[in-house]
Amino acid sequence: MPVPPKDPFGWLDAAAEQRRRDGLTRTLRPRPADAGPLDLAGNDYLGLTRHPAVTAAAADAAHRWGAGATGSRLVTGSTALHAELEAALAEFCGFEAALVLSSGYAANLAAVTALTGPGGLVVSDAANHASLIDGCRLSRADTAVVAHADPDAVRKALDAHQGRAVAVTDSVFSVDGDAAPLPALAAACRAHGAALLVDDAHGLGVLGDGGRGGPYAAGLAGAYDTVVTVTLSKSLGSQGGAVLGPRRVIEHLLNTARTFIFDTGLAPAATGAALAALEVLRAEPGRPARVRDVAAELHRRFTAAGLTAREPDAAVVSVRAPYPEAAVRWAADCRAEGVAVGCFRPPSVPDGVSRLRLTARADLGPDEVRRAADTVLRTAPPGA
Amino acid sequence: MPVPPKDPFGWLDAAAEQRRRDGLTRTLRPRPADAGPLDLAGNDYLGLTRHPAVTAAAADAAHRWGAGATGSRLVTGSTALHAELEAALAEFCGFEAALVLSSGYAANLAAVTALTGPGGLVVSDAANHASLIDGCRLSRADTAVVAHADPDAVRKALDAHQGRAVAVTDSVFSVDGDAAPLPALAAACRAHGAALLVDDAHGLGVLGDGGRGGPYAAGLAGAYDTVVTVTLSKSLGSQGGAVLGPRRVIEHLLNTARTFIFDTGLAPAATGAALAALEVLRAEPGRPARVRDVAAELHRRFTAAGLTAREPDAAVVSVRAPYPEAAVRWAADCRAEGVAVGCFRPPSVPDGVSRLRLTARADLGPDEVRRAADTVLRTAPPGA
Ligand SMILES: Cc1ncc(COP(=O)(O)O)c(C=O)c1O
Ligand SMILES: Cc1ncc(COP(=O)(O)O)c(C=O)c1O
Repeated sequence: MPVPPKDPFGWLDAAAEQRRRDGLTRTLRPRPADAGPLDLAGNDYLGLTRHPAVTAAAADAAHRWGAGATGSRLVTGSTALHAELEAALAEFCGFEAALVLSSGYAANLAAVTALTGPGGLVVSDAANHASLIDGCRLSRADTAVVAHADPDAVRKALDAHQGRAVAVTDSVFSVDGDAAPLPALAAACRAHGAALLVDDAHGLGVLGDGGRGGPYAAGLAGAYDTVVTVTLSKSLGSQGGAVLGPRRVIEHLLNTARTFIFDTGLAPAATGAALAALEVLRAEPGRPARVRDVAAELHRRFTAAGLTAREPDAAVVSVRAPYPEAAVRWAADCRAEGVAVGCFRPPSVPDGVSRLRLTARADLGPDEVRRAADTVLRTAPPGA
Repeated sequence: MPVPPKDPFGWLDAAAEQRRRDGLTRTLRPRPADAGPLDLAGNDYLGLTRHPAVTAAAADAAHRWGAGATGSRLVTGSTALHAELEAALAEFCGFEAALVLSSGYAANLAAVTALTGPGGLVVSDAANHASLIDGCRLSRADTAVVAHADPDAVRKALDAHQGRAVAVTDSVFSVDGDAAPLPALAAACRAHGAALLVDDAHGLGVLGDGGRGGPYAAGLAGAYDTVVTVTLSKSLGSQGGAVLGPRRVIEHLLNTARTFIFDTGLAPAATGAALAALEVLRAEPGRPARVRDVAAELHRRFTAAGLTAREPDAAVVSVRAPYPEAAVRWAADCRAEGVAVGCFRPPSVPDGVSRLRLTARADLGPDEVRRAADTVLRTAPPGA
């Protein structure tokens, strides 16, 4: 493509060159359908994305309802399947009502923007997910970014504000896998009359009785002042997201949230798959404990061998790498030995520290866990 | 749910009451799987969402690849199917490269935020889609909202700015169905060295040779300074979105766009369905002309009977209603007679004017078109 004198995208080449120099260039690596490496990089925590009941439900839904929702949820995009999934999610997690959106990202944008606005205050944990941060930006509320997992900081930020306020936190932080101090955060919010919004993307299916999630485990299910977002794309093995909470909050979202109103409804296949995954989870309530055990064992093996890894509160095990290129090479070496692990580096990490990121799965056998841990240890770079 | 003294959501009740008073309360109406009303409300323009090849592809993909992508596109969420769809979309629409995201909404957020930033200028048509507007807000660039479909206004806004700039427009505006003046907009951008970003959500599959879209029809396919977003959820009958453009733009998005990096990849079923729909479109290049003919005929019948409707440039036919409640009742009366039509009212309409919104479909037969038009005319309120 010949480049003209007035080139509106010339600056992109400089940005690309800078990324190359910093070792931060990302590339897509499309995977084949058949068995690839042992996967400890994805978020299929319960091993349900290829569960026969789940894939069959996806296929059935496509045949029965069509490949797409055909419109926004308020026009033609709501099927009885969406309503069924919303009822099942609300019931399972212990909330009055639920609203399904096309992604967890969209659910977070919807929840944050609908619950606050100009003049309001959002108190946001410094390690929150990008979608919550974007929600804060879109809301045009005042945003107080507070120290990570620090209920006192939340309390102080709330005390400095008059009027409507909401505190926002991940339940399990996706980079380090640590859990938020939900009971203390809820107490801080309640004392102030603020709402608490919890993104349970990495908690649903992993934490709480039978996998009912982080807020459920913290005694917040059905609370009048708590709103929860979940994704259907991790433990439920599908795609999509949902907001759970008091009915009046869900009604408000349905009437005002732009990423709900102006977005095509979730595809029937994804809706049906999430519903089937929830049924498997109900029928096999031991899966969440199994995924936590696998995470704990990986952590035990890593720290016993001298690596720096935080004790996992859920399914994510993060191991420190000395610098970005070392993290990239480490992950590549693991992959070369048949084990896929994630690799987080700037700008995806809030603190600038690069990491290997492993995710436990409920369907990993003892041999697979051992092989994964051995591979990570064998390929560890000096300084790790 | 008992309401406590310090109620963080008390304000929602007042907002709900205000909506009720204004006749603006929205409700979900989940539809059954079997034949409901004649659908002129959805965006399944080519009638492909229930096409056997498309639903079979969705089902096959779920079986072969699993119900979900399992992770972000840069970790485990890229399958060979995603790569195939990206190549097919780029080739079909005439661009160097493409990037698939989980929705058209996410694609717009990604494209706008990645192509500008603080200090840059975005020139945005006053009638642009919510997702483009949210992209402008998230970008933290200076945003100049200019008069609808006005290339001179774009030129003036660009002239008043030094440095990086991008003009952003829908190709077909979703409320009124009018097309943007793309050649004139492109000339204004090119004279200034600005980029042009076109959201072709309602153009793909409807406009241009064989449905290659609005930018293709305007001679902008493959242009060095043009970036296009599309949705997979309308003409392609599925779910998801994509950004198309010069390879360096796509590389930049892949490395920087938050709604790409921090979002789970599009589900395999939706990916496979969109790919199959694109194949049907290639094999049956007459579908786009058929949907435009249906829209033109609806418009002819409405205006011949005295209704106020803009001549459609694509598949959307909008008919003015005298006030919001009349629009709601009109749509309800049509539905009661077996014809589903859309109804747009504040705050979904930029100008505050409520409308019936009908969407043509390539698979409507002459009798169905006649029945739809007759129903709309028979139920028209006084003053329409
Ligand atoms: C904490 C957290 N919230 C939200 C999301 C977004 O969910 P989704 O991928 O379904 O859009 C993710 C990951 O993707 C996440 O890790
Ligand atoms: C003009 C326009 N752009 C973008 C979108 C968003 O696309 P999606 O529904 O795939 O998120 C829509 C409608 O939904 C639209 O009408």
